[in-house]
Amino acid sequence: MDLVYQHKVQYYETDQMKVVHHSNYIRWFEESRTDFLEKSGFSYAWMEEQGIIIPVLSVSAEYKMMVHYGEEVLIFPTVTEFNGVKMALSYQVIKAMTGELATTGKSSHCFLDRAYRPLRLKKEFPQVYEMFMSCLSHGQKEIPPSAR
Amino acid sequence: MDLVYQHKVQYYETDQMKVVHHSNYIRWFEESRTDFLEKSGFSYAWMEEQGIIIPVLSVSAEYKMMVHYGEEVLIFPTVTEFNGVKMALSYQVIKAMTGELATTGKSSHCFLDRAYRPLRLKKEFPQVYEMFMSCLSHGQKEIPPSAR
Amino acid sequence: MDLVYQHKVQYYETDQMKVVHHSNYIRWFEESRTDFLEKSGFSYAWMEEQGIIIPVLSVSAEYKMMVHYGEEVLIFPTVTEFNGVKMALSYQVIKAMTGELATTGKSSHCFLDRAYRPLRLKKEFPQVYEMFMSCLSHGQKEIPPSAR
Amino acid sequence: MDLVYQHKVQYYETDQMKVVHHSNYIRWFEESRTDFLEKSGFSYAWMEEQGIIIPVLSVSAEYKMMVHYGEEVLIFPTVTEFNGVKMALSYQVIKAMTGELATTGKSSHCFLDRAYRPLRLKKEFPQVYEMFMSCLSHGQKEIPPSAR
Repeated sequence: MDLVYQHKVQYYETDQMKVVHHSNYIRWFEESRTDFLEKSGFSYAWMEEQGIIIPVLSVSAEYKMMVHYGEEVLIFPTVTEFNGVKMALSYQVIKAMTGELATTGKSSHCFLDRAYRPLRLKKEFPQVYEMFMSCLSHGQKEIPPSAR
Repeated sequence: MDLVYQHKVQYYETDQMKVVHHSNYIRWFEESRTDFLEKSGFSYAWMEEQGIIIPVLSVSAEYKMMVHYGEEVLIFPTVTEFNGVKMALSYQVIKAMTGELATTGKSSHCFLDRAYRPLRLKKEFPQVYEMFMSCLSHGQKEIPPSAR
Repeated sequence: MDLVYQHKVQYYETDQMKVVHHSNYIRWFEESRTDFLEKSGFSYAWMEEQGIIIPVLSVSAEYKMMVHYGEEVLIFPTVTEFNGVKMALSYQVIKAMTGELATTGKSSHCFLDRAYRPLRLKKEFPQVYEMFMSCLSHGQKEIPPSAR
Repeated sequence: MDLVYQHKVQYYETDQMKVVHHSNYIRWFEESRTDFLEKSGFSYAWMEEQGIIIPVLSVSAEYKMMVHYGEEVLIFPTVTEFNGVKMALSYQVIKAMTGELATTGKSSHCFLDRAYRPLRLKKEFPQVYEMFMSCLSHGQKEIPPSAR
């Protein structure tokens, strides 16, 4: 499964420093995360309908290079931790033109039901559990060596 | 009732033209609209709990002067039309330092219940109806002559 | 030239009414507008480098159908007015799955130089002038009849 | 100096989970940071005019409680590290009604000149250097014990 997600930088994402405002990378992480879920066969829209809520417990970003309006970035999300109750992902934001690593990030999540009670994916949604488990073991391979 | 709403321009609201991105004024209109509802005694959070949904049917803005980071603006929302089924508001965005009119805008709305069916405010929520009616007749007086 | 622009609705674009927040359509208009410029051969990033600034003078949107997270929309920008000094565009936001017209909009613009003085495109940038003129005459044809 | 910054949660800051979208807290950290600079006597608008650029090198947030539309939060920024070349801040987001700690966060920054070269504040802007130094030693006292 190819996890790469493309994003074209929009004008409204810039600030008066003439670069992308740092808060938007947090949104790009989410874009790549929900794109990855859709590609996995279990879109987040579908999950919410089933009563699987995946809130963000923490998020972080490290900015290494400024990204500008009109540039295209590739975002590689990777599932780094998953045990059926909690999950962690890491993100790499790479400039499409040059392959340079612009930003890295992380997010951690839990799984809740509609009443916001902890959800045991393994018991309640075994197929979703298997999908995340499979991402965990294979995720690291998705990032091309040239872009590390 | 003093309808004026103050907003301090934030860095993340600017774009690389070094002014506030035009989409943010639409959000400021909403800020002033929900502030006005709160001051009226019927906050929008309360209305949603009661099952009064007020979606936006249309919105427009005319940009007359650029607004910059660090500036403070005053926003004057005015109820210009209301009949219990639909409502229209106009907005004036004024620079607090100079009194200059930076932007004007309009929005139109309907009233829906939780099932997104049209709601007759006069019958279902007569107190909310009366409040809007009272704003309609008095609203125009709220804008200070010096700021027109 | 195919002016259609695709946008996938993101989670961060929704609000607690469980639909796309109305301010985001203004940003989608911009996305489609800068996409159209890029396809025309004169990207807005390039224009700004040359000293062509195209601020927004006014914007409006009419919301006909709610759009939800995970949906894909097609946005058709059309140049409706252009005389080398000012320009107007209209936008149609169509649900990709059903062809339903979700939102329409308009924006008007002027052309400024780096010092924010009016710019005469015909004299200063004749090629850009010709491109916009050509869009004006042919733009209306771009929208498929089925989506009107 | 009272560093507390008040923010009223806006409708456009919510998402379809009916809580504030996690990316907005990153913007609130910025709001509190630039508010703190303004209160310090050296607004960020003024700094940029002088050629002091303070980009974000990293940012993180931990979400402990969901915050809802209409709630008011108090944000306490604290300078935790400063040496004239780099700076780190921490943030506490507290619900105004209950005093509950909703979110914590951190950001790190460097100081650049107009040409994006490292800036030595102590030599170039000694008064700004002194202000940050004074915040560093006194900052921890600003958070009321009841809100920890």
